Amino acid sequence: MAVGLQAPGELHPVDGIRLAATHCGIKADPAVGDLGLIEVAAGASVAAVFTQSHFCAAPVILCRRHLRTHPAARYLLINSGNANAATGDAGLEAAAASCAAVAAAGGVAPEAVLPFSTGVIAEPLPLDPIRAAIPRLVDALADDAWLAAAEAIMTTDTLPKAISSRVEIGGRTVTITGIAKGSGMIKPNMATMLAFVATDAAIDAAALQALLQELVASSFNAITVDGDTSTNDSCVLIATGASGVDLGSGGEVLRGALRDLFERLAQAVIRDAEGATKFVEVVVEGADDEADARAVAFTIAESPLVKTALFASDPNWGRLIMAIGRAPVGRIDPARVDVHLGDLRLLHRGLPDPGYREALGQAEMQRSEIRIGVNLNLGAARARIWTSDLSYDYVRINAEYRS
Amino acid sequence: MAVGLQAPGELHPVDGIRLAATHCGIKADPAVGDLGLIEVAAGASVAAVFTQSHFCAAPVILCRRHLRTHPAARYLLINSGNANAATGDAGLEAAAASCAAVAAAGGVAPEAVLPFSTGVIAEPLPLDPIRAAIPRLVDALADDAWLAAAEAIMTTDTLPKAISSRVEIGGRTVTITGIAKGSGMIKPNMATMLAFVATDAAIDAAALQALLQELVASSFNAITVDGDTSTNDSCVLIATGASGVDLGSGGEVLRGALRDLFERLAQAVIRDAEGATKFVEVVVEGADDEADARAVAFTIAESPLVKTALFASDPNWGRLIMAIGRAPVGRIDPARVDVHLGDLRLLHRGLPDPGYREALGQAEMQRSEIRIGVNLNLGAARARIWTSDLSYDYVRINAEYRS
Repeated sequence: MAVGLQAPGELHPVDGIRLAATHCGIKADPAVGDLGLIEVAAGASVAAVFTQSHFCAAPVILCRRHLRTHPAARYLLINSGNANAATGDAGLEAAAASCAAVAAAGGVAPEAVLPFSTGVIAEPLPLDPIRAAIPRLVDALADDAWLAAAEAIMTTDTLPKAISSRVEIGGRTVTITGIAKGSGMIKPNMATMLAFVATDAAIDAAALQALLQELVASSFNAITVDGDTSTNDSCVLIATGASGVDLGSGGEVLRGALRDLFERLAQAVIRDAEGATKFVEVVVEGADDEADARAVAFTIAESPLVKTALFASDPNWGRLIMAIGRAPVGRIDPARVDVHLGDLRLLHRGLPDPGYREALGQAEMQRSEIRIGVNLNLGAARARIWTSDLSYDYVRINAEYRS
Repeated sequence: MAVGLQAPGELHPVDGIRLAATHCGIKADPAVGDLGLIEVAAGASVAAVFTQSHFCAAPVILCRRHLRTHPAARYLLINSGNANAATGDAGLEAAAASCAAVAAAGGVAPEAVLPFSTGVIAEPLPLDPIRAAIPRLVDALADDAWLAAAEAIMTTDTLPKAISSRVEIGGRTVTITGIAKGSGMIKPNMATMLAFVATDAAIDAAALQALLQELVASSFNAITVDGDTSTNDSCVLIATGASGVDLGSGGEVLRGALRDLFERLAQAVIRDAEGATKFVEVVVEGADDEADARAVAFTIAESPLVKTALFASDPNWGRLIMAIGRAPVGRIDPARVDVHLGDLRLLHRGLPDPGYREALGQAEMQRSEIRIGVNLNLGAARARIWTSDLSYDYVRINAEYRS
């Protein structure tokens, strides 16, 4: 069902990063990966952001704890099939034990290992198969295993999500390669969303953390499937420094390449959203401030009535007006609002455009990639986000997920 | 698909109220009503609350305007099939013209007529058939036409919603009868929800408005289907005074009878929610304040992942934890949280209850009426709301609504 999402193209190795993946036995099907390991060379910078959930999972708690004392993480261990959430002290102990096993095999401190989990909530993490698999994972580490790692972290994803790019800066090549997973429970402040991006640019830890937060704002925090946020979301950006290009010399080219890769990776999550038949961009302009622009955009993107109309390819755009009307913002002046579907103007200054014809709206709605544009004509702030529609398959997938 | 909703029982006339309904031609099917009229005797008090949408419809704008100068409304004109929303000045003129037609036929000022509309947004209100029908509506006014009025205001409702009750107070009988419509786009601060309740109690206008706001808080503002709020929601409470019983003599018995009728009418909307297969009560206790309790309850009630699990009768209660975790409240301490499904404890102080068995959870989830209980164990505030599940039929109904 993925909308305009292809299998990953060539994934360039990132100097300083090695990966491995395997089936350890968390998932039932022995043919699919459920455990991945990423090794980070000594001297690299690591930045991370995590879910804002009150109920964050054991691995998230442990990641935060480890990063406080060992900001330069050396290993990332990722399992799918079990979220290790709502598992209390036993969950923390299981996550810590899995880190200790990696630390022993890799010859680093346990706090230099970061754990990540995604899958079913409130079931104990099966520690034994994870521990048993770690020696062979460490042995298998290679710089060309990005795709295998992308596959091992999938849950309801229908395709692995991995993107790689290279830019030339001052005669040197900078590589950026990233993987992500997630297709439901996706919403700003992350989601059941894991993303790991590495570059061989040289960026110190503090600058990398600030950069990651900026990159996430316009990518992973600008997507929503169902407004649901998971207990486990994590996004990690690693800069190994091997290319010798830093933010000073890389400047806007490097930032632009990173921003582009983050946005495409976030869009890949939406293109593979559970049951999606449409890829929808919502742009809100003319707001008093960016928070208002985002609030209007997310109200549209998360409205079940808008999403079912998108699924039906029905230009029932009264529902867009309804959603704009209920957005939790200080002021909207209906008499100033313009609404577009693609290039077609639906509403002009609060009234149906005289040139609007149902057939034109129908043609726009039948596209698989749709752009909804709203101009509040109040101020200069804007926001752009991406979402999917609400289909029978969304219900089917989520009604059947565990069975 | 309605869950535990019966056709209305006996509807007692309310002294001072007459009603009529007809098919005027807004809807295609000549067998179904699409226009209703309620006549209020002179001297009655009228209170009303309306949608909080920025994009409120022409009839809502006009109702507010009329009530400012003529608080004692004498006629309520209600059409279904067209919302008269996003229709600009032409929509206001059409609503005003329909009021003027009622005023002429009824011999009152146009400002003593309140208009209400529900249906498709952004299409012109067909004024001619409405005007043509008004004389025969006025001629047909009768005190026993509550059911016909309930039927005429339906849109995607599968059953009319009407409830009537009588209480004896100090040897006198007080009657309360109300009707409501709405089954999608339902959310606090009203929804595509119209409700009209009349009593022959004697309550002055100011007290009636305060009472209505109190009643709505625990009824129509405590329900949600999809989190979507309409442009047209309105709730009117009329007190004709004919029984001679006032709030002083009626006291808690009268308030209790009104509260009970409002709650049952609001529940009827949820029982008939679009595609509903479950009627779900969410109770959140132990919150720091009522706003937090409501925020947690609504986050659970509006989570698509919780709603699809309810539809599937799947005790995948990790999703309840996810929803509690993402609730927009100041603090939640996971280690204090208890969660129940009916009487079955799922989570005790943040951990799966040792006595929990999947079969027990399955049995609770298979009921058609489900109670989700959350205790945050932080403070003394609580909230109780009602919602429905998210089914294939919700998608079907909303993907096909206009076709």
